[in-house]
Amino acid sequence: MVNNMVTEIDYAEVPKIKDVVLIQGIAPGVGYIGRNVAGYLVSELKAKKFAELYSDALPPVVNVDHNGSGLIITMKYELYYVKGDKKKKQKDMVIVVGDAQSMTTEGYYEIARSILEFLEEMFGIKEVISIGGFGTGMLVEKRKPHVYGAANNEKYLRLFEKLGVKFKNTEVTQIVGAAGVIVGEATRMEIDAVCLMGETSGLLLSDPKATEAVLEVLNQYLNLDLDLSKIQEHVKEVEKVLKKIDEMQKKAFTQLMKKKEGDDEHLGYIG
Amino acid sequence: MVNNMVTEIDYAEVPKIKDVVLIQGIAPGVGYIGRNVAGYLVSELKAKKFAELYSDALPPVVNVDHNGSGLIITMKYELYYVKGDKKKKQKDMVIVVGDAQSMTTEGYYEIARSILEFLEEMFGIKEVISIGGFGTGMLVEKRKPHVYGAANNEKYLRLFEKLGVKFKNTEVTQIVGAAGVIVGEATRMEIDAVCLMGETSGLLLSDPKATEAVLEVLNQYLNLDLDLSKIQEHVKEVEKVLKKIDEMQKKAFTQLMKKKEGDDEHLGYIG
Amino acid sequence: MVNNMVTEIDYAEVPKIKDVVLIQGIAPGVGYIGRNVAGYLVSELKAKKFAELYSDALPPVVNVDHNGSGLIITMKYELYYVKGDKKKKQKDMVIVVGDAQSMTTEGYYEIARSILEFLEEMFGIKEVISIGGFGTGMLVEKRKPHVYGAANNEKYLRLFEKLGVKFKNTEVTQIVGAAGVIVGEATRMEIDAVCLMGETSGLLLSDPKATEAVLEVLNQYLNLDLDLSKIQEHVKEVEKVLKKIDEMQKKAFTQLMKKKEGDDEHLGYIG
Amino acid sequence: MVNNMVTEIDYAEVPKIKDVVLIQGIAPGVGYIGRNVAGYLVSELKAKKFAELYSDALPPVVNVDHNGSGLIITMKYELYYVKGDKKKKQKDMVIVVGDAQSMTTEGYYEIARSILEFLEEMFGIKEVISIGGFGTGMLVEKRKPHVYGAANNEKYLRLFEKLGVKFKNTEVTQIVGAAGVIVGEATRMEIDAVCLMGETSGLLLSDPKATEAVLEVLNQYLNLDLDLSKIQEHVKEVEKVLKKIDEMQKKAFTQLMKKKEGDDEHLGYIG
Repeated sequence: MVNNMVTEIDYAEVPKIKDVVLIQGIAPGVGYIGRNVAGYLVSELKAKKFAELYSDALPPVVNVDHNGSGLIITMKYELYYVKGDKKKKQKDMVIVVGDAQSMTTEGYYEIARSILEFLEEMFGIKEVISIGGFGTGMLVEKRKPHVYGAANNEKYLRLFEKLGVKFKNTEVTQIVGAAGVIVGEATRMEIDAVCLMGETSGLLLSDPKATEAVLEVLNQYLNLDLDLSKIQEHVKEVEKVLKKIDEMQKKAFTQLMKKKEGDDEHLGYIG
Repeated sequence: MVNNMVTEIDYAEVPKIKDVVLIQGIAPGVGYIGRNVAGYLVSELKAKKFAELYSDALPPVVNVDHNGSGLIITMKYELYYVKGDKKKKQKDMVIVVGDAQSMTTEGYYEIARSILEFLEEMFGIKEVISIGGFGTGMLVEKRKPHVYGAANNEKYLRLFEKLGVKFKNTEVTQIVGAAGVIVGEATRMEIDAVCLMGETSGLLLSDPKATEAVLEVLNQYLNLDLDLSKIQEHVKEVEKVLKKIDEMQKKAFTQLMKKKEGDDEHLGYIG
Repeated sequence: MVNNMVTEIDYAEVPKIKDVVLIQGIAPGVGYIGRNVAGYLVSELKAKKFAELYSDALPPVVNVDHNGSGLIITMKYELYYVKGDKKKKQKDMVIVVGDAQSMTTEGYYEIARSILEFLEEMFGIKEVISIGGFGTGMLVEKRKPHVYGAANNEKYLRLFEKLGVKFKNTEVTQIVGAAGVIVGEATRMEIDAVCLMGETSGLLLSDPKATEAVLEVLNQYLNLDLDLSKIQEHVKEVEKVLKKIDEMQKKAFTQLMKKKEGDDEHLGYIG
Repeated sequence: MVNNMVTEIDYAEVPKIKDVVLIQGIAPGVGYIGRNVAGYLVSELKAKKFAELYSDALPPVVNVDHNGSGLIITMKYELYYVKGDKKKKQKDMVIVVGDAQSMTTEGYYEIARSILEFLEEMFGIKEVISIGGFGTGMLVEKRKPHVYGAANNEKYLRLFEKLGVKFKNTEVTQIVGAAGVIVGEATRMEIDAVCLMGETSGLLLSDPKATEAVLEVLNQYLNLDLDLSKIQEHVKEVEKVLKKIDEMQKKAFTQLMKKKEGDDEHLGYIG
């Protein structure tokens, strides 16, 4: 049996959408902006889950439902769709949400390609918008956070520049991880793609203001009529869960380190 | 020759069992509870070994028999079976015991899937029970340790909740490693699955009380008529071996670290 | 879907060249000499890009154009060609330039083999010249830097020894990374191959003098009539970009370390 | 192009040997005993090289000939053979010598399996003898070093026990790396196998006395009429090379560490 690394997308239905805009937000990332933006879109637009991506490159872990139900949640990315209202000039959208980055180099590429190839085959993809954060290392100033961008062609870039996204002469030199790789793979497939990065100090677990700044851009660009008043609340909610996971991981890390220093404890992080 | 990662299950006989309950306990894990529970079941139920799993993702190591025979023991997982006594309402069981976690991310998934697919094809699987520990970081209190659980559906969860397993509002947020991944993969295959975690301080190499607490749940759930009086002795026996391995590994780690600091020694851990 | 690691070379045209000399310079490397030599050749010889190599073993990152355009640059190696002027006894050349080493052991081999097999099939390869640096750990002396070499056969070695390259009794004991692996794989394919290494302190981000020393050897060996006066300027230009990337990565590394120490920040390096 | 990890054995001739004893010594290992024993056998028995193993799991490096020739040496394992003198009751032998361990977990298994399957198909394998060291952490005592052993069956074990090899109740609990994995894979193929480990402090780069102790066992067991008087000299010779490589690697490691601490230097170890 030669199994090797496997990535699979299981789908429960084939939604009637086409020429989709793909919006991706994967945690962890600076200020959890990508994850929060994508999650907010899903809940506000009442996006419907239609598929799940499983990959052997995702962490060898299952999560336990943070609502206290005792049910496990498998490690996966979730694919939601929104059928755009053509009268409002909305496009059909697929939103990809995930709570883990790939554990391996190859996995980043395989996951991005699996998503793009799956959507291209099923619906056609017209645009890819990946969401991330840009950490300045400084505390948030009094002004509204900027939204930084990097796009794969000048024409597409200008659409977002008009909405205030900063592309020229920024401090952004690299986009690392899932947010970067999906834009890179989209470029190879000749699909318009942009990465939108909310400016954040990087000192906070999650950043509602930067999340809002990115959502405002998407709201305008995609004609979404979003109610942005619940962001604060949404981000707080997510933060609670993040904190739990964070504490758990710190505990595990501490135990791991003690072990490595050669004392009497054993790996505490393997269940 | 393109070999790549390979996982193989070699079997010596095809036992006449069907619709099995899979019970898995892999070391290392918090308090070695999974490994000790599975080992105790094997010895008390006189389970018979019928198959061995070999994987290129397991550590590149052979062990030397701790009984002083000088014989090597290959790196593998062992599969045992117990034919249930239908009069006692016992189910057919397969017990998977292993002394190493995967070394790679993909390996965790490949090994879990290999076990599940092998058993599903040969006998059918009805339930998956993976055993682990939950380290609280605090010394064991005077009360009996809890058994924590996480299940993949509400109905199955309730069967264990009735037996005292704590599912709701626990501190468990993630199950890492083999114990978690097999439950996740079982979920994808739509098999009822639960992870039972004995509460332990995590400060001990192995924890007999937590082992006993989990065995009590299994004893009731599976109608096993287990004699639990030998746990203390069994765990002590295992601990002796663990200590040897532990000292060995610490020595190796220390030598490795010295090497990395750039002194005159060479890697001491490669035979 | 079993994708696994993939390396692909996409080409836009099939240049009319044959029996090529392959010259490779990949960053990062000691003193960025390989990258600077290859880059200088491309710009001075007006080499034309005809193909791009993409590999899942390259870092999961996209770069943002350092000229401030806001356009992304996908992670890849670039293949340029120069049709040699036969009257000047020039050979046809392919120059491979890249800004990242492989992230995995297997990737180094797969990338080198992909390049060699692609060029061998399309044009035939006669020689492989990989460029690197040799860090002495000492500040540059007043004399001109040496060019060190290691070749895969005595006859080919002598061609460069005549031009002053030092092969005998040097301090070079290993060539690590892309510069070494391509020479090793060429050896297996029985292609003449040499690695030329500019002597440098290793204390500078990039080293124009060592770059010039290597270019002088290539200039003579390949009859290139190169204008070497712009090296200083070229290297300065590249250094500006390197510094930006370097600062970015240090910031990311610092954030990563803070995270690992268990404080309140999250991974700052994932966009 | 999907290449993935590749291991290949290229052979120049098919020697007329059969039912061979495989003897393997791979560096690095404790006290470089395996490598020195195998190397000494090759030179004293005038063993002839007939094949080379290349693997993408070996370090992405080429070595430069330490004799100062300036020629590169590709990263590989070398397979030598000796046709046994039947009158002296000698067996046909294949000696595998290598200067690097696998860089990946899967690689250890793939390399061992490639060697065993190749030899089994071409000649048949009767026995596998892997050579290693066992580091006690203490300075060598005045007595002769022990030779420790671990075998995969009782009958085969006794053959070496008779020659003084210590199998029973030793401190050896694990055999890590190439020396262990080849014995494990041989066990799965039902080939008699033993690992012989020279007792050494582990504080020396290489240990001539432990090397001699293992060679004495092999000399008797294989009826080799070895002249053991040149061991001291042979080991010294090898040590000179090891020291060079060692210093090189320490320098590289130091530079790497400085880089990671975030100062102004770049990776010094990539050519």
